[in-house]
Amino acid sequence: MPRRRRIALCLEYDGRGFTGWQTQPDRRGVQDALERALAKIADEPVASVCAGRTDSGVHATAQIVHFDTGAERPPSAWVRGVNSHLPRTVAVLWAQEVGADFHARFAANARHYRYLLLNRPVRPGVLAGRVGWYHRSLDPGRMRRAAQCLLGSHDFSAFRAASCQAASPVRELRRIAIEMRNDMLSFDFEANAFLHHMVRNLVGALVRVGSGAWPVERLADVLAGGERSRAAPTFAADGLYLCGVEYPPKWPLPGDGRIICRPDTHLG
Amino acid sequence: MPRRRRIALCLEYDGRGFTGWQTQPDRRGVQDALERALAKIADEPVASVCAGRTDSGVHATAQIVHFDTGAERPPSAWVRGVNSHLPRTVAVLWAQEVGADFHARFAANARHYRYLLLNRPVRPGVLAGRVGWYHRSLDPGRMRRAAQCLLGSHDFSAFRAASCQAASPVRELRRIAIEMRNDMLSFDFEANAFLHHMVRNLVGALVRVGSGAWPVERLADVLAGGERSRAAPTFAADGLYLCGVEYPPKWPLPGDGRIICRPDTHLG
Repeated sequence: MPRRRRIALCLEYDGRGFTGWQTQPDRRGVQDALERALAKIADEPVASVCAGRTDSGVHATAQIVHFDTGAERPPSAWVRGVNSHLPRTVAVLWAQEVGADFHARFAANARHYRYLLLNRPVRPGVLAGRVGWYHRSLDPGRMRRAAQCLLGSHDFSAFRAASCQAASPVRELRRIAIEMRNDMLSFDFEANAFLHHMVRNLVGALVRVGSGAWPVERLADVLAGGERSRAAPTFAADGLYLCGVEYPPKWPLPGDGRIICRPDTHLG
Repeated sequence: MPRRRRIALCLEYDGRGFTGWQTQPDRRGVQDALERALAKIADEPVASVCAGRTDSGVHATAQIVHFDTGAERPPSAWVRGVNSHLPRTVAVLWAQEVGADFHARFAANARHYRYLLLNRPVRPGVLAGRVGWYHRSLDPGRMRRAAQCLLGSHDFSAFRAASCQAASPVRELRRIAIEMRNDMLSFDFEANAFLHHMVRNLVGALVRVGSGAWPVERLADVLAGGERSRAAPTFAADGLYLCGVEYPPKWPLPGDGRIICRPDTHLG
């Protein structure tokens, strides 16, 4: 029996047209597309594990995936070869053999998400499906002040989807940066991990503060209250990008194990 | 008979899924989508004229259009009303009544195009259809030096599609800016007007220089030679954005008649 190898790779995708990361009976998950392409190169079925199971319509600029295979291929086969079998809107950026103790999901110690929100009266056109939208004027300063209460380790039950399967609602939010450039707001979040819909729910609440509908202090009350029903609506998947995953230095991956690839580094 | 009014509007669109600006027998032009939506609000057929007839797959962040109508509607009807009848990837940004002497195409005295080129070994994934791609390393300095010869009034026959219907091959290129940010190159072009495929052909030639395949001086030779066959391939439509149109100050339009809305002002 050939030696099994573990390969890590970095994937980017446009989430439109997929039912999310996870494999689905109709095989329209990003995972399905990737595993079909990997199987063609490996000449055997391949099962993959990702760092962040993105929802339907959510994009990635740096999703990390691992899989095991008995196939011995040069790294270029796992990049260019696999890319030739992937849909146009999905691409492997790099691939590298890693130790058998590496795990894309359990070894990750930080995830980075960016939410892009178009803030103007008119709905998106050229950027449809790639940004969220809010039509009334938002104040980034109010949102920044409110967001301070979210930093650190908290029970994020108030921002957790009913469908969330995580064992604990506690997460450590390490960084929030809110920037406005012309009519585009970007929200950057870094945490050890995120609950289901957590970023989209946080953006919904921050927008309530930014529009003036909520006082700045209300975010802290909602967080402390821990009730999803008191929070704001979940924002659209369109604006959400998984744009980085970090691993301990014992696994030296391209980008120093700090793989951050923001959408704005890609446009303009 | 009601008084006819002339309305100018600014349109953005994702060129994928359209056969280009111009109306087509199969009605899959951007113009078809716009005129269908305008007719619903006007309650009569509407014929439109645009500033720049973009090709299939070419995007716009600021296309200017005019049309005449007997319908009297508030400006918001031509924006929000029309948007509710447009496909998701097309949006009217503003609309304004203008004098009958305004003409979206003939009154324009400058057009701005931006070409976005992803410069990395791996093909686009998350940005598929929205950027061009070149896999080998490009030197922006070489391209900038070569581009100097293009500035001013020239016969651009060497960069003109065989299908081009313009009466004269002479255009005045007023500005070229080439910027690299991480792995994304942007090429900004401003001219009084452009020939068919002119920007995509210029980008093809600049890439030849940037990769080292052509010496810097060759671009001037090709321009002077005036033969399309000596030039480089036409680059993909995916990376091309019509992002501004200028009119004389006698028509005060939103954005001071200098309507520039670059893709990078929309992301990040």
